[in-house]
Formats: sequence, C-alpha cells, structure tokens
Amino acid sequence: MTEATPTERVNAWLETFAAALARNDTAGAADLFGEDCYWRDLIAFTWNIKTVEGRDAVKAMLDANLERVQPRSWHLTEEATVAGTTTEAWAAFETEVGRGVAHVRLKGDKCWTLLTTTEELKGFEEHKGPTRPNGHAFGYVAGRKSWLEEKLEDEATLGHTKQPYCVIIGGGQGGIALAARLKQLNVPTIIVEKNERPGDSWRKRYRSLCLHDPVWYDHLPYIPFPENWPVFSPKDKLGDWLEMYAKVMELNYWGSTECKNARYDEAAGEWIVTVERDGETITLRPKQLVLATGMSGMPSEPRFPGAERFKGEQHHSSKHPGGEAYEGKKCIVVGSNTSAHDIAADLWEHGADVTMLQRSSTCIVGSENFTRVNFGALYSEKAIASGITTEKADLISASMPYALMADVQKPMAEAVAKKDADLLKRLEKVGFMLDFGDDGTGLPMKYMRRGSGYYIDVGASDMVADGKIKLKSRVSIEEITETGLVLSDGTALDADLIVYCTGYGSMNGWAALLISQEVADKVGKCWGLGSDTTYDPGPWEGEQRNMWKPTHQEALWFHGGNLHQSRHYSLYLALQLKARLEGIVTPVYGMEPVHHLG
Amino acid sequence: MTEATPTERVNAWLETFAAALARNDTAGAADLFGEDCYWRDLIAFTWNIKTVEGRDAVKAMLDANLERVQPRSWHLTEEATVAGTTTEAWAAFETEVGRGVAHVRLKGDKCWTLLTTTEELKGFEEHKGPTRPNGHAFGYVAGRKSWLEEKLEDEATLGHTKQPYCVIIGGGQGGIALAARLKQLNVPTIIVEKNERPGDSWRKRYRSLCLHDPVWYDHLPYIPFPENWPVFSPKDKLGDWLEMYAKVMELNYWGSTECKNARYDEAAGEWIVTVERDGETITLRPKQLVLATGMSGMPSEPRFPGAERFKGEQHHSSKHPGGEAYEGKKCIVVGSNTSAHDIAADLWEHGADVTMLQRSSTCIVGSENFTRVNFGALYSEKAIASGITTEKADLISASMPYALMADVQKPMAEAVAKKDADLLKRLEKVGFMLDFGDDGTGLPMKYMRRGSGYYIDVGASDMVADGKIKLKSRVSIEEITETGLVLSDGTALDADLIVYCTGYGSMNGWAALLISQEVADKVGKCWGLGSDTTYDPGPWEGEQRNMWKPTHQEALWFHGGNLHQSRHYSLYLALQLKARLEGIVTPVYGMEPVHHLG
Repeated sequence: MTEATPTERVNAWLETFAAALARNDTAGAADLFGEDCYWRDLIAFTWNIKTVEGRDAVKAMLDANLERVQPRSWHLTEEATVAGTTTEAWAAFETEVGRGVAHVRLKGDKCWTLLTTTEELKGFEEHKGPTRPNGHAFGYVAGRKSWLEEKLEDEATLGHTKQPYCVIIGGGQGGIALAARLKQLNVPTIIVEKNERPGDSWRKRYRSLCLHDPVWYDHLPYIPFPENWPVFSPKDKLGDWLEMYAKVMELNYWGSTECKNARYDEAAGEWIVTVERDGETITLRPKQLVLATGMSGMPSEPRFPGAERFKGEQHHSSKHPGGEAYEGKKCIVVGSNTSAHDIAADLWEHGADVTMLQRSSTCIVGSENFTRVNFGALYSEKAIASGITTEKADLISASMPYALMADVQKPMAEAVAKKDADLLKRLEKVGFMLDFGDDGTGLPMKYMRRGSGYYIDVGASDMVADGKIKLKSRVSIEEITETGLVLSDGTALDADLIVYCTGYGSMNGWAALLISQEVADKVGKCWGLGSDTTYDPGPWEGEQRNMWKPTHQEALWFHGGNLHQSRHYSLYLALQLKARLEGIVTPVYGMEPVHHLG
Repeated sequence: MTEATPTERVNAWLETFAAALARNDTAGAADLFGEDCYWRDLIAFTWNIKTVEGRDAVKAMLDANLERVQPRSWHLTEEATVAGTTTEAWAAFETEVGRGVAHVRLKGDKCWTLLTTTEELKGFEEHKGPTRPNGHAFGYVAGRKSWLEEKLEDEATLGHTKQPYCVIIGGGQGGIALAARLKQLNVPTIIVEKNERPGDSWRKRYRSLCLHDPVWYDHLPYIPFPENWPVFSPKDKLGDWLEMYAKVMELNYWGSTECKNARYDEAAGEWIVTVERDGETITLRPKQLVLATGMSGMPSEPRFPGAERFKGEQHHSSKHPGGEAYEGKKCIVVGSNTSAHDIAADLWEHGADVTMLQRSSTCIVGSENFTRVNFGALYSEKAIASGITTEKADLISASMPYALMADVQKPMAEAVAKKDADLLKRLEKVGFMLDFGDDGTGLPMKYMRRGSGYYIDVGASDMVADGKIKLKSRVSIEEITETGLVLSDGTALDADLIVYCTGYGSMNGWAALLISQEVADKVGKCWGLGSDTTYDPGPWEGEQRNMWKPTHQEALWFHGGNLHQSRHYSLYLALQLKARLEGIVTPVYGMEPVHHLG
C-alpha cells in the first residue's frame, strides 16, 4: 500500500469536515480539530474578525452560526504542501451569501489552524477582469450622459441632495484604500480629510521621511506600485501616488474639510456628521461612520512640570516641521522610538546640536536585515518570482493566528539580532537601552501588541552609536526650566527646541474628540491583542481590538494600520459595510467586552 | 528512432545558426533560411526597424553588420510549439552591446520568419524589480537633498541652466510613453505640449468619445490599467490616467507650451527649439528632437469651391467642439470614416438633424465582433489567463513581418464580416458603400497602410442603417453655397453646420510647419508600408515609413500610433536615443530612399 500524498491527506480531512458541516454535526466537525487548535474567521462564519481557540470554542462558534452560514463546495485550489510536522493547503468554499478562501494546517489527521474568509458577496461581485465594465454603452441614446457628466453630477449631489451610505473620517492610505474598495462595491462614500489634497498627511511630515516598510508590503488594492518604484518610498512620492490613486479610482474625496462632530441618531439609524468644507458647514447623514484617522490615535503630550515657562520652542513630534530652522540650535528629542530617531537624524543633517533622551528601552533592527528576514518569504522580489502574489501573501499572513505568532517571530527576532550584532554592541556601549520585547519576540510583535517601542534603523542608530546624536539614557525628566530641562540624575540640559516623541494614544481618543467621551468609553481601547505584555494589557483577545470589525457602538468602525493592513483588512471591512447596505443579515458572533477605556 | 520534438528541432536549427554567426559565416547563416524568408530586426542587428526579405537580403544584412554585432548566447527560453506546418519558438540572445529576444518560425528545417530585438543595453539596464532603486540613501549626510528637493531642482534647471538631451514635441500618449521610457533610462527629456495638462488632447475632443481599441491593447509601459478599468476607456477617464501617469512617472512635462520653430544646428550637432511657455520665450538646445504630434499629422482641410461664402459654421473634425450647440440644427458631416460616424452620432444625440455625406467606400466592423476576432488571441482576458502578458503579445505581434500580415488578416476580415452580415446588409440597403480593403484584408491592414478608411461600429452604423443619421452617398461636393452645398448629382442640401471629416496628412507636415519644408521633404512621407494599395503608394518598404527609427534628417524622429504602438515601439526608440547619448556606435543599416514627399 502506498502512503497517501499530502493532497490526499488534506482532501480526506476536508471531505470529512465538509460532510460534518453539511449535516450540521458541530461536535463531529469540532472533533476533526486537535486539542491545540485555532480557527481564524474573517467575516465568513462570524461576521466578525475572530479567532476561536480550542475544540470547545470551535464547537460553540459552529453551534451559533453553522445553520445560517451553510458552508459548502469545499475544494482544494492547489496541491497541499508539507512544512515540518504540518501539512498545509488552500481551499475555496461558499456560504449562503458569499465565496471565500480557506487555509488549513493539519498536524497528523487533525486540524491545527484553519482560516476562513469571505472574499466576495454573491450577487455583489466586483466588476473586474472578465466582468469589467464596458465603458461605452453601445448604441446611442438621445440625452445620454458621458462618463464625465455622470461623474460631475455624482460629485455635485453626493453629500448634498443625496446622502452617502458611508462617511470615512481621514483620507490617508487607510481611508483611501477602504474608499476604493467601497467604490468598487457601489457603496456611496465620502472621505472627509482636513488637508487639502490626498497625500498631504505624508507631504507635511519632516522632509527626509521615507517609509520603513518595503514596497512589496505597501501596495494599495487594484493598482500596485510599478516595478520601478523604490523599495522605501520617499514621503512626497508616496503623497503623489495617493493623490493620483484617489483621482483615478474616482473617490469622493473631500479635502480641506474638517469633521467638527458626529452623533448617532438611534431613531433614524444614522449618523449626523457636521463638517466644515471650505468655510461652509455641511451636515452629512450616513448610515455608517468609519474613523480612519491613523491607528496611532491622538498625540500623547505628557505635561512635564515647568513646561509652561520654557522660553524655547517645544512641540509634539506630530507637529514637528523638520530641521530646516534649527541649524546651530540645541535640540532635545524626548523619546527613542521611530519618530525620535528620524527627527534627531534630520535635525543633525540640518546642522543642529541634537541630544536624544532615552527613558525606556527600544527594539532596534537594521533595515536591511529586518527586511530580508521578516519580509523575504512573503513580500519581496523573490516571493513574487516564486508565485506569491500580494493577495496570497496577505492571506498567508492572515492564516497564522495571533496566538501562534510569537513562536514564529521569536527565532526571526533572534536571527535579525544576530545579523545586527555589531550595531547593537556599539549602541549598548554608548548606554542605549535595548530590548526585543518582553518575551524576545521582536519588532513585529511590539507592533501588533502596542504599535510602538521600536526603530527600523536606516542610519540614525549609527549616529547614536557614533555620538553624532548625543544620547542621555536611563533618565527621566524632573522638570522643564526656562532654558532647558533637568533630568532625574541631576543633569541640566540647555535647549532651544524640545521635541516630544512621546507617541500616541488609542484610536478611540478620536471618538472622544469627534463624538463623545461616552461613545469612546463604550467602544474602549483600540489595537492590542491582550497579550498581557507592556502596553498590551490582558485579558487575551486574540485579535486587534476594535479594528476593521463591529464595535460596541452601532455603525461605528475603526480602520487603519500600516499599508499592508490598510490594503488587506479594507476588503473585509468593505464587505461588512456592503452587506449592511444590501440588507444581508449580519449577526456578529463573539464580540469581546470592553476591558480598557483607552 | 523516435522523431525529434519541436523543441529539439528548433534547438538544432538555433545551434547551427549560432555557430554560423559565431564563425562569421554569413552565407552559411543565410542558407539556414528558406527561399521565402523574412528577418525582422528591431535595432539589434541594424540599428533600424527593418525587415529583410529573401536569402540574399539576409546575407547582405549580415555581411554589413555581423562583425560589429557579435551575436551570441542564443538559447530557447521556452518549449517550442507547432502551428500548422510551422514550428515556433522564443529565444534569448546577446550582442556586443545589448540583450534581446528572438522569435523563430521554421518550415521544415529552414527558417521562415525570424524576429530579433534589443530589449536592453548592457551597462544601462533599467532599475526595476530586483534592481529597483532603494529610495532611501541609508545613512545620513549633512545637507543631503530629499527626493522632493531633487525633483524640484531638476524641474527648475532642466531647459534653463541644464539642457535636455531630448525634446519631445507633443504630450499625448505617444510622447508620454516615450518620455517614461527615457526617464527610466536616465535620458534628460522635456515634453512640450500646447495644452495645459496631460490628457487634455483627449479631454478636448467631443464629449461621447471612447477608445475604439479594448483596454488590453492600450496599456502604457510600467503601469498597466487596473483590472476594474473599462474595456473601452471614456476620453476624460483616459485623460485623468495620462495626467496621473505623467506625474507619478516624474516626467518633465511642459504644459501650456507651444513649439514655435526648430532648426538643426549642424555645426553644434544640436537642435535650436524655440518654445513659448506661459508667455515666456525659451530656447531649448537638445541633441535629439522627437515629433510625437499624432500619427495623423496635420488636418487635411480640402477647399471646396464657394466655401468662403457659406453663412453657417464650418470646421474640420479636429476642431469640432461636440454636439451641445446644435440642437435642432441642420448638420452635414462630410466623410464616412471614424470621426464622421462619431461626430454624426454625437450630433444626433444632441437633437441635431444630421446627414452623412459619403464620397468613397468605408470598411465597417462591429466593435464586439472585431474585438473578439482581432484581439481575442493576444489582447484579452483569455489571453492573460493563458499566460500571454502584454509584453509577450507585443512581441508576438512584432514577430509577423508586414509582408505576411495580409495573409493572416484576410480570413479574420472575412470572419468579422460574416458575423456582421446583418448590419452590412442593412447598410448596403440604404446605399452605404462598403469595402474591406483593396484586397479584402480588412481594417487592420487599412490602418497599417494608410491609417484611415474605416469605422469600428459602436452604434453609429446602426443609426445610418435606421436612417436616424441620413445618408447621401456616391456623390461628391460640387460647390458650397451661402446656405448649404450642391452635390454632383444636383441635389442641394441646406446646412447650419458643415463638419469636414476629411482626415489628416502625413506626419512630416509637422516638420514642415515647425522646422522647414526642406526638412519635411528630405524626410518624406511618414506611415505606410508601400503596399501599392489606395493611399499607400509603392515601392514596397516592409515597415512603417519613418516611424520610431532614424530618418534622413539627422537627430529627427517620429513617434506615434495607437496606444499599442506607442507602448511597444517607444522601447526601441528610447534605446536608440539612449545608445546615442552614451556614445554607443549606431550605424544604421538599410535606410530606404524617400519616394514620396508627404
């Protein structure tokens, strides 16, 4: 007897699984999972972004949803592969309302991890590729409108005589990617952005800024960056790309428009959003409101004693204009994460005298080593050459439950640190405090858990190690004086400029500002997994809190993250909104209670 | 003994061929071709776009070039295939200065057709994919310029304190595609365009215009249209795309700039190009001048007797503003090709009373049938799904010598006409004069030979057949009166508007206008193959006259054509310009004498 191939093994499992689901046998289906198991669902079963962990949780999820979902037509879409002790495969399946992708990892004949997604809604498929629009209505009709006339009419009416279904506050890459998806799904949407043009939120930052993630990770949906695009996008070039993208994707982008406030009208089931556009106050009444104001939320501006008497200039990093005006000036950069490094290096390039004030430890990775180790397999020229498209890479990323990610990341963090050994040694020698996360799982886990605490070195660490950027570490600020600051070790530092690179609060701070503290508290903290590590308090939630999924405030959504997340999760958020527009029943399974206010 | 596979057969031929070339045996190499043979070369052997026909011509071409070119490293890049009596295969090869692609068709063990191209120059490879720029100079340098600062400086100096190597007159898709290629090759270039913004040459045309070629045929280099793009682009949407493209490709696009004149300074070896930009007169001194002013050249505006006394409005199709102003007016459209149909239908949509005046026969094809039959194999969703990328489709198109194209096109023309039979019968019934080219080879050959004489029906033919657009055919214009026109059959037609859809002259008309009649005459007629059919006088040339290749005026080039040609041939024109910039020796082989002045 010959041994079964990996494909045959997964096929056997999948058939049994599909049969159990088909006969509504939730216990039988759960039994096909190992004891240590994870089912991550992106809106296919749960109308939520949800990972259930363990057989009991799998069964409970199925008990609640299976009858409605009616999953079927499961079949492998390519040959299964073996990686160590697991056998992996991709499958397609349908539900009553949608078509989706599944990824399964078996250990022995039991499922270890399962990913299920909805990629499109039946009857509301996007018109692309073979079903792209014709563009020209064949035949002539008297009085027919041209593409331009229709577009101008849509622009003139939407938000005035015709209400958008969805309003997105914030027109950075997050809002733009989501609006592009919604446009393709025919969900009338307006983006509200206080800057004049798409891309301005990048253009307005300090002059030397480049993306720290490589291009393969950064594509927007529908129009990938071209093959001549630099690995690390300069901010203004990215700004131009976003501007052109918003234009050719025909987004209703309201620039120079500020959201003054928003209130949910329970009775009408709609938001009352007041915006100021070019001096005019306009009230929008969308059914859905998305805050895409940046995953970092509102600036955290700590108030140090004595700050009010400082005679020099002081501002939060988010308001830093760049180093042009500071040649020959004494500048203190408070903090030691990404913004602190970027701003310190930029000040130095402009001839300032710069001191970085490090109060707590930082995870440093060399850009080249980090890019190779952490992006190489999925987001790189090599990955593309081996057939891993951006879409596939995104799904592979999504297939690994957060609970297992730390195990995957730890050896990668160690590999990067080994390659970076020289730089790290030099940094330690000048007193720089390093860390690799509470459990040594490195930068990506810090990002997932707290969205802070790291710097991808593109040169500034070298300057810290060299002393070009002076370092004062293991200290805190006692007080600010008229001329500078006094540190906890008694040192007094003179300063013309203090930049507070002190980070950002939770995104629900925007809800407090624009809606109400009550709604912000009802929603609770955004971001973080509940890993019970620094700045990511428990209990364990297993998904990003409140991101791209329903919140405890009806019809309020949070969208954001890096370009990868903006791209991939905008699909599932767009489908959730489209389903509601079309009246598809969307019971949300497994919402977590609010544990933290912000 | 088993029979050799197709791949083995082509490999055997290629090895023998490569060996003959390697030992400079031009007679031996020519002997590997059949008696009926064609070698099409895109700048690899000839620094020309040139087809040599027959063994003697192959030998003569090799005698003149082989020693310099030093072709080598020939190898198949995929399995050979069999089509009827021919065996086909793709190969790669190198020359002393470049890397290229070859396509070979064997009949028996002899070569029937060979295509050779240069795709990149050694030492001047484009930075893309794995060699894309980093975007961020790692490490910090005091005073370093940001991407934006460098860009602004380049814009401020080029054409003022720093001369461009190349000036392109005309910023439509042709100029834009070429400038994008040159940018990638670091050839300093300025596009001079009289309209304000890229895309305006489309935006300013009549409101209902859509491309008549499908999207898969129309991509620009580097950034293909996205999968949601309509099959037939509305003109304003295409305009926005071109504008976006010029911006993100960082082209030096001088809008609102008119070229007043140009003169070649033989002694200095450079052009003196006078332009007016926003009221300022600027003299540019490029080494190379490209006219990309539209393959159609200057409007042909025939002067009919009495035209000066007409009291209504009369203009050439190129100046037609669209039908808005003509509701209830009597409009005569003179001509029966593409512009005539588009304009007549647009006038009808606006409520005008329209008569089409057909003076000679026209090739009509239904858009859907034509698109399916003529584009299906190479430029379609099906083609993409079967792995035929745009680049590959372009090379497949290029691999068929013009001399054989009529044989390929004839059955396709017949197939389209068969599918269109109903429409054609109805058109004949109302007196519309049809033709399918002098030799029944249909629309594409008319395009290649004369660039006129056809209409891809998107509905206007139906309206002619229905009588919505009135038809007056088999007549010529006797004279124009104060109130209309008198035809050769004695009919008098009243008119408020006469639109002359009378076509365009040869592109060298632009040289006459901008440079001198002497230079225009030295260069001669542009476009046409010398097929000795209507409007394409002989002798046979076997390539498009003067297009994308050296002309008899030093450093003067013509670029243009449809979007497909603008995309594909811009590569070879860009490489010819780059080679000259870098001082690569570029002896041009096989320039044809001038037979026609325009």
